Formats: sequence, C-alpha cells, structure tokens
Amino acid sequence: MDAPPSQKPLLRALAGEAVWPPPMWLMRQAGRYLPEYREIRAQAGDFISLCTNPELAAEVTLQPIRRYGLDAAILFSDILMVPWGLGQPLRFAQGEGPLLEPIRDQAGLDRLDLAGLGQRVAPIMATVGLVREALDQHAQRVALIGFAGSPFTVACYMVEGHGSKDFSVTRGLAFSDPAFFGRLIRILTEATTEYLCAQVEAGAEVLMLFDSWAGMLSPAQFRRWVIEPTAILVRAIRKRYPALPIIGFPRLAGAMLPEYATRTGVNCVGMDSSMDPRWAAGAVPAGVTVQGNLDPLALVAGGAAMEAEARSILAALRGRPAIFNLGHGIVPQTPPEHVGALVRLVRGG
Amino acid sequence: MDAPPSQKPLLRALAGEAVWPPPMWLMRQAGRYLPEYREIRAQAGDFISLCTNPELAAEVTLQPIRRYGLDAAILFSDILMVPWGLGQPLRFAQGEGPLLEPIRDQAGLDRLDLAGLGQRVAPIMATVGLVREALDQHAQRVALIGFAGSPFTVACYMVEGHGSKDFSVTRGLAFSDPAFFGRLIRILTEATTEYLCAQVEAGAEVLMLFDSWAGMLSPAQFRRWVIEPTAILVRAIRKRYPALPIIGFPRLAGAMLPEYATRTGVNCVGMDSSMDPRWAAGAVPAGVTVQGNLDPLALVAGGAAMEAEARSILAALRGRPAIFNLGHGIVPQTPPEHVGALVRLVRGG
Repeated sequence: MDAPPSQKPLLRALAGEAVWPPPMWLMRQAGRYLPEYREIRAQAGDFISLCTNPELAAEVTLQPIRRYGLDAAILFSDILMVPWGLGQPLRFAQGEGPLLEPIRDQAGLDRLDLAGLGQRVAPIMATVGLVREALDQHAQRVALIGFAGSPFTVACYMVEGHGSKDFSVTRGLAFSDPAFFGRLIRILTEATTEYLCAQVEAGAEVLMLFDSWAGMLSPAQFRRWVIEPTAILVRAIRKRYPALPIIGFPRLAGAMLPEYATRTGVNCVGMDSSMDPRWAAGAVPAGVTVQGNLDPLALVAGGAAMEAEARSILAALRGRPAIFNLGHGIVPQTPPEHVGALVRLVRGG
Repeated sequence: MDAPPSQKPLLRALAGEAVWPPPMWLMRQAGRYLPEYREIRAQAGDFISLCTNPELAAEVTLQPIRRYGLDAAILFSDILMVPWGLGQPLRFAQGEGPLLEPIRDQAGLDRLDLAGLGQRVAPIMATVGLVREALDQHAQRVALIGFAGSPFTVACYMVEGHGSKDFSVTRGLAFSDPAFFGRLIRILTEATTEYLCAQVEAGAEVLMLFDSWAGMLSPAQFRRWVIEPTAILVRAIRKRYPALPIIGFPRLAGAMLPEYATRTGVNCVGMDSSMDPRWAAGAVPAGVTVQGNLDPLALVAGGAAMEAEARSILAALRGRPAIFNLGHGIVPQTPPEHVGALVRLVRGG
C-alpha cells in the first residue's frame, strides 16, 4: 500500500496501459446498499446537508474502499450541486428525486450566479481534500475521482425541474430555441470547468463527466449538445491540467460512442450495460481506455448469472486499456456480499 | 390510385428496392394529436373498447391516410392486446398507462389461456379486414401493416404490471430465474405467432414487431431474450407466409442493430431517433431495409429544426432500401400541420 502515485492501477489504465486484472470501482459504490452508509445518511439530515458536510461526505466516500479495497474512491456528491452552486433552488423530496425551480427563459439564466459558485461549493472541495489526505495515508494504491454532470444532462434537470423518462420539455426547447439552450449550455460549460478544476486543486486525480441522458438525442443534437460542449470542457481543463485523465460517460450513446471518444478528447469512455464491450473495445480508438459495464441487476442476482456476465466483459476487455465497473449505478437492493464476490471474481482475473 | 398491390411503394421498399422518395408513414400516426381521433376516442369509452370495436378502430386507422396520404396504414391497437387476449387482467388507467395483474410465478403462467386467444382477439381481426377492404377500394397504393409487441417487451409489462423507467423487476427476474422467464417468453412467442398470422389471414400485408425495451438489456441478455425469440417468431411466420415482409424495431439497440438484422431474419429494421442513420445504413446488411428515424420532438418544433433533421435522414437513406418514419411515436402535442409539412418535405425528396 506504499507505491508511488504513478503506480496506482487506475492511473496506469487511464494512461493507456493494459493493466491485468483491470482496476475496478463501481458507480454509486458509496450508497444505500451499505448499512454503514444508511447510518451516516440518517445522521446527516437531508441529502444536500450530507453533500455539503465534509466530514460525513468524506466518510461515506471512504466506506466502500475500506470494505472492498476498490481501486478508486469517487467523491460522494451529486451532479445537481452545480445548479445548486449557481443559486438555482433545489431540494431532494423523499421518494420523488430532485426538484428544481425550472429555468426556461433569459430571466432564469440571468439569476444564475456564476461568481458565487466557488464559495457555495467550497465544502465539496473540503471533502475532496479530506478524502485525498486519508487515501495518501492509508490507501496509496487508490485513486481519487472527482466528477460533475455534463452540461447537457445537468441542463435537462435545470429546464425540466425534475427527473423525467424522456426530458421532452428540455429536448423540445433545444429544437425550438437553440439560441437560449446554447446560452444555458455555455454557462454550464464554464461553471463545470471551474467546479472540476477546483476539485483537482483540492486533490482529485481523475475527473469523470456523467452524461446520463446523452442517449436520448438525435445524432445532430448529440454532436451539438454533447460532443461539442464536452470537447470545450476537456480543452479548458487540460489548459490548466495538461496531464489530467478524464473519463466521459455518455450513457446510451450506442454506435455514437467511438465518435464521442475521438472528438471530445477524453482519456476513457464509460460503457453503459447495454453496450457490447467486445464491439466497443474494437470500435473505440486503441489509445482510449474503456470502462464498464456489468448490469447492476446481474449484481443483485449474484451467483451464476453475475459470473457469466462479468466473465464475458472481462474477456472483451483483456489486452487493451480498461477499467472494470458497472454499466449504471449500484441499486439499493444489492446484497453487499455480492459486491465482495464480484471483487474476488475480477481480481482473480 | 389503381396500381396493382406489388406496386405499393412500401412493399417495393420492403422487397429491397431503393424507392425514391422513400415511402413514409409515422409511428402512432393515428392518435391524440388528431382532432378527428379525439372525437372517436370520446365516443368509444375506454381504450380497450376502442381497440375491440372494429368499426371505430378501422376508422381511426384510416384517419391519417385520408388526411395525409401516407404510404401505410397501421392497425390501431395496442401491444398489450396479446396478454389481454391470454386472459391477463388489464386496464388503462387515466394518466397512469396500462395496469396488469403481474405474473411472476408458475401459477401465473398456468392461468394464461392460449386456447382462448383466437376468440378474444377476433374483433381485432375484423378491424384488419375492414381496413384492408377500405384500402382496396379507395387507396390502392397504401399498404396495411399489422403488428404485435415482441415477446421480451410484452413480458416486461406482464411481469412488472405497469410501465417503468427501467423494468428492474422483469430484468432482475430474467437474471435470477431464467427458466421461469424462458417459459413466459416461449408462451408469448407462440401466442404472438398465432396473433400475427391471424392478422395476415385477415388482410395485413406487412407485420411489425415493436421491441420498445430491448435496449435495456446487456448484450448476452439481448441475444437470449430479444434476438433468439424474434428469430423463432420470424421463422414460424415465414413457414406459413414465406414472402411476408416483417419489420423489427428493437428500440435503443445501438450497435447491436446489425446483429439483430442479420440473425432474426427480418426484412427491415426500425431505427430509434438516437441512431445515426448514416451509420446504420452502412452497418445493416444492404438487403435489409432500414426505417426511421425523425425525433418526434423535431416534428413538434417544426420549421427549420424539423427540416434540418429530416433532410439529414433523407441524405443518409438515399440509394438504399429505406422507409421514412419517426424514431418513436408521434406525441399528443404535435401540431397536425407539421405532419403535413413533413410529408411535403419528404415527398419533395
């Protein structure tokens, strides 16, 4: 546990090395399936209070590292902390998910407070600092991942005001008023650049961009609202941190994934569970690491079903730079012992 | 309007001819966006009553043909008429979508009444007959499409009991009890074969299989629960009707679409709106027709946004067998005049 940082398996895989067995972590690895998380969550009050409490957020970030010895810790936070940091009213209602005051006109954009973002998200940077310190002391092979939502996916929530099966208000607005939607995307691109660079400053070694709703767009809209802003964001971050590894996760991108990988300039692309990893491993440029993509429901099932799915992914990833992960976040009903079994399986190669 | 049946543009495109401009129809073209539909809907009582009233169902099937002169009429019905026909209790609750008594065990399977299916769905076959008669008399270039849900997608509703953003109960069960799920899929494959062949007997000239939730599956599960049952279904139909054109629509199949096209044996694959038609036109075997894929929200927006999206699709389809369509069903807020503008644009080539 005392290797120099460059020896961290996750960073080697992100630098283009075909590390075997592949480094692994799991989306939403700090979460409700863990009893120790539920305990902290009950203490913290509401969800935003947990995200802005550095001691508690650092603690839940570290819980799955202690329990499973994964290769990366990912900051415990939420993609909506950027709109919250810009002053858009946000609350997490029990059982309903996030609720925001929707922004659908210029007056709404004018109320966004880019200048105040840094101060509002300062507690999150304190969390990053605490986690990094703990890893440096006790888990030197574990890399620290910071993250944000990508501009398009965050814009979906900001315009819609809540989760949705198809975000039709947002996508409709992107068609009917692209000038307005472009202004929102530009504000978010700038805010997200600041937010992510602050995480690097505080100790994040890798950044990940979650674009959960990218797959709902037509190819032309995908290029305009996903690929282009992501490319601008990646360039802006690299201007300050030239060697910083960045993972992009355009969920349900399907056959657009190779174009996303090439044109955005990310180091690594996340594959959702529906992606054939064998196809992606060949179609994505060899220098770009791939990450994924076990179905979280296979992890719930465990046993032979999980083993067959995981082995098929491992076979597809072998011989190229890759990171083992889920294709979507862990679900609350996951038995914690199935995660342990998965770690043993992947580590067994 | 008096060409022989083989001259119907849709049938020529499905036989592998690069008809130009491409024949066109629109998923959910008979629906709530049309005032004449809403009038009939109000008369019919509940939704199932409309689907099982041959005169009214035939009338709404024909409404978009009269208004827009599209190249195909598609039977007005619902993919859940198969479970309904098998005796599974079903109702459509206002604003909630379909509600079924979930089937999650062998006792539930045992209650399914395959022998009673033909009699229960007889009114639907009467609708097909009435529509075909009307087309033969008044619109001889218009092809009649019959349809069903694919076994996997119908199973999703039968197990879950309602719509869902991720059908996690169903997909979880497919992992944890594949023997049970396989029995359900086999019953549905047999029932759907009967149901579709009865539609052909009644006058349908083309069949379409809607697989709305296919894209949620891992590649291995997609092969097992989507490709394999669809291939069995296609072979069973072709055994009775060797020349019958079949369209498969595995929504969100992404990069799995070419494998689906090759291995199921369908004549044509539907592309959802997120699919790059230029990629699909090249990746799907040249003998397989492609269909799609305008974003229904571009049709709501109309104007320049719709025109740019539609022209880009037309450019991708040119020179290969293709059918112009949406990538998902028309949404209720679509202005009917935008549909007219789209028809003129596509017909203008």
